[in-house]
Amino acid sequence: MMRAGTHHLADDALRAAASVDDTRLLASIEALAAFGARSDGGVNRPALSATDLEARRHLVGYAHALGCTVTTDACANLFIHRPGSDAAPPVMTGSHIDTQPSGGKLDGCYGVLAGLECMAALNDAGIRTRRPLEVAIWTNEEGTRFAPGAMGSSAFVEPSRMPAYLNAADADGVTLGAALERYRHALPGLPSRGDAPPAHAFVELHIEQGPQLENAGVPLGIVTGIQGVRWYEFHCQGVAAHAGTTPMPMRRDAMTLAVALRASLEAIATSLGGEHTRITFGRWSVTPNSINTIPSDVTFSVDFRHPDAHVLDSFDAQVSACAQRHGARIAPLFTHAPVRFDATVLARLDAACHALEAPALRLTSGAFHDAMYLSQHCPTAMLFVPSRDGISHNPAEATDARHLVLGARALAHTLTTLCND
Amino acid sequence: MMRAGTHHLADDALRAAASVDDTRLLASIEALAAFGARSDGGVNRPALSATDLEARRHLVGYAHALGCTVTTDACANLFIHRPGSDAAPPVMTGSHIDTQPSGGKLDGCYGVLAGLECMAALNDAGIRTRRPLEVAIWTNEEGTRFAPGAMGSSAFVEPSRMPAYLNAADADGVTLGAALERYRHALPGLPSRGDAPPAHAFVELHIEQGPQLENAGVPLGIVTGIQGVRWYEFHCQGVAAHAGTTPMPMRRDAMTLAVALRASLEAIATSLGGEHTRITFGRWSVTPNSINTIPSDVTFSVDFRHPDAHVLDSFDAQVSACAQRHGARIAPLFTHAPVRFDATVLARLDAACHALEAPALRLTSGAFHDAMYLSQHCPTAMLFVPSRDGISHNPAEATDARHLVLGARALAHTLTTLCND
Repeated sequence: MMRAGTHHLADDALRAAASVDDTRLLASIEALAAFGARSDGGVNRPALSATDLEARRHLVGYAHALGCTVTTDACANLFIHRPGSDAAPPVMTGSHIDTQPSGGKLDGCYGVLAGLECMAALNDAGIRTRRPLEVAIWTNEEGTRFAPGAMGSSAFVEPSRMPAYLNAADADGVTLGAALERYRHALPGLPSRGDAPPAHAFVELHIEQGPQLENAGVPLGIVTGIQGVRWYEFHCQGVAAHAGTTPMPMRRDAMTLAVALRASLEAIATSLGGEHTRITFGRWSVTPNSINTIPSDVTFSVDFRHPDAHVLDSFDAQVSACAQRHGARIAPLFTHAPVRFDATVLARLDAACHALEAPALRLTSGAFHDAMYLSQHCPTAMLFVPSRDGISHNPAEATDARHLVLGARALAHTLTTLCND
Repeated sequence: MMRAGTHHLADDALRAAASVDDTRLLASIEALAAFGARSDGGVNRPALSATDLEARRHLVGYAHALGCTVTTDACANLFIHRPGSDAAPPVMTGSHIDTQPSGGKLDGCYGVLAGLECMAALNDAGIRTRRPLEVAIWTNEEGTRFAPGAMGSSAFVEPSRMPAYLNAADADGVTLGAALERYRHALPGLPSRGDAPPAHAFVELHIEQGPQLENAGVPLGIVTGIQGVRWYEFHCQGVAAHAGTTPMPMRRDAMTLAVALRASLEAIATSLGGEHTRITFGRWSVTPNSINTIPSDVTFSVDFRHPDAHVLDSFDAQVSACAQRHGARIAPLFTHAPVRFDATVLARLDAACHALEAPALRLTSGAFHDAMYLSQHCPTAMLFVPSRDGISHNPAEATDARHLVLGARALAHTLTTLCND
């Protein structure tokens, strides 16, 4: 039996988890999805767009109602702060609320709203943690309005990135700098804080965006790291010629070259990386792109991901040689090493799943997340819930309500134990 | 010895051919290429664009200087008329002056300018032919601004096509109707004539746009017909999914489907058509065309040409079944049966080459030409000069000057004999 004023800390975590309110959590997801709602049920909410600013105002109002303070920083990240009993570095959670142009309701938003639900649950349970708890909303994670993605979290951990980011322009030529100016006018009165203060830990809850949990029939995923990635662009040069007059043996069709190169690259990736290989040829540009002209130029992108840094390095070496054999030009666009999350935070996630009697799978994230950068700042790990049919970046993105609630309970448990360290 | 007033008709043809002025012809090609000149030496002159209207004004001025009258019609075709001694149906020649977006100086333009050079040569030689000679400039042959191509010549032979053509819109949404309105304002005072009057013959001089003459080392090609054609669009449907999270075996990548279908279609075309097969996959559209999303939709075009109508029909039958096997949708875009040119006009071309002691090859055109439609209106044939490296629809399009001059001389000979029928 517990008496008022004599909290048992392990009980705090279980009580916080139990106080997660499923109706309130699910309603908060629907409420946020109204900002930038698409007619097909999806969401289109570019970073720092008018709808994003309205969504932020909505969340700031909710944070104030929870008794939290809200601050911002140079990259428009928002920090929703629930005080602790001590002035120790906070435990952080959160994610992002910008979406793909035809995105869903959960990617990013779920992690932010589950974090706020944890604060509401702690309030309801009358728990005052030792450390503060902070929900972060990271700016422009998707990278579809401004490149690169994860701007907010990467600028948080490395503020020297900001001067370059300020010049990044969207498709209409609006720079991040101009969008930030508009943000400061739209949400006045938010205190801005300087460089990132120390944090005790960061835990990001997210939908899996893949099929592994669903296939395994397991409701929670403890994410041990993030795959490394290589982005390349390949350019194949042919000769534009008339479709009707050029005999087949005389043609130098850039698409024929590109299709052969694509097959070679996929074979290399598969032979190097085995079943963990993810290789995608997502973006194509064909010139002159005319029915009756043989293509002279084809450019295509390669996205290669693997959890093993050695495999990524070998891929780098082999694709250069492969491009040369095919007479293609190669341009590296982006690279990120694999990330290993913190063993101590992973152990707290294990303990939470155990305490809630929720089966959990250990897995590697195939997608980037803000946690990729936060892991450079403080002990970090992630928790996943299943994605129905593995679908994400799509209006059809969905997760069963019981999984959404269970994920929020496991997050509440984990954050509470970390806050009481 | 010839005396004034007692022309020997065969001598007229030789004298007209001899009066072709190489410097004037080559200068006229450069002068026309200045309208819409590209920095890479090519030409970009969309049909009825501002540069096309300026080019037309330039040619109308030159026609008047030659003593010709100029009329137009409902599709903005221009008719440059050199009177004959009788009011008999004219002999027609000409081609088009619109270009591909990255086109060359010769495709179409050469036929128009060689026709005007024949008129100048007849003037210089003091020859009055029995029949009038008419140089036509056909509107929108390339079909890259407004679809379909060969609008002007097809509307000339079949005016009932015009109402549909008027609604054809370019990439900016400007209709042919609106472009014609602008044309009539830009070139006022050109008398418009009604439905196509009878013609005695049509002869179109053109660059080959392929390598056959060059490979054979022969300076002139007598074109006995035009390959038939099928244009299709194929659509492959996949599922958009996250590049980092979706295991390879679970993917349904629309580009993977499209690449396999492309290979099957090429195999069908080759097995049906043998060495005469021309198959081109020129236009591609990939959705969502994002580096880190698996393609959900790929659409590509097929241009298949063959001189044998039975092969084209068999292709129609087999591609439908092939699309079904691959789970793809198929949409026919355009079809045209093979064309056989007129034996009498071909004999006149033979005679001209013989008289000029110029070796000639008989061949089939792989490209469409306005002559394809004119052959429905009057006895028609074509004459080709070589294309260097077989290249066309490209700024590098070129023909040796001596071949350009020889082609114009053979045209002058042929037109003169036809005009004296």
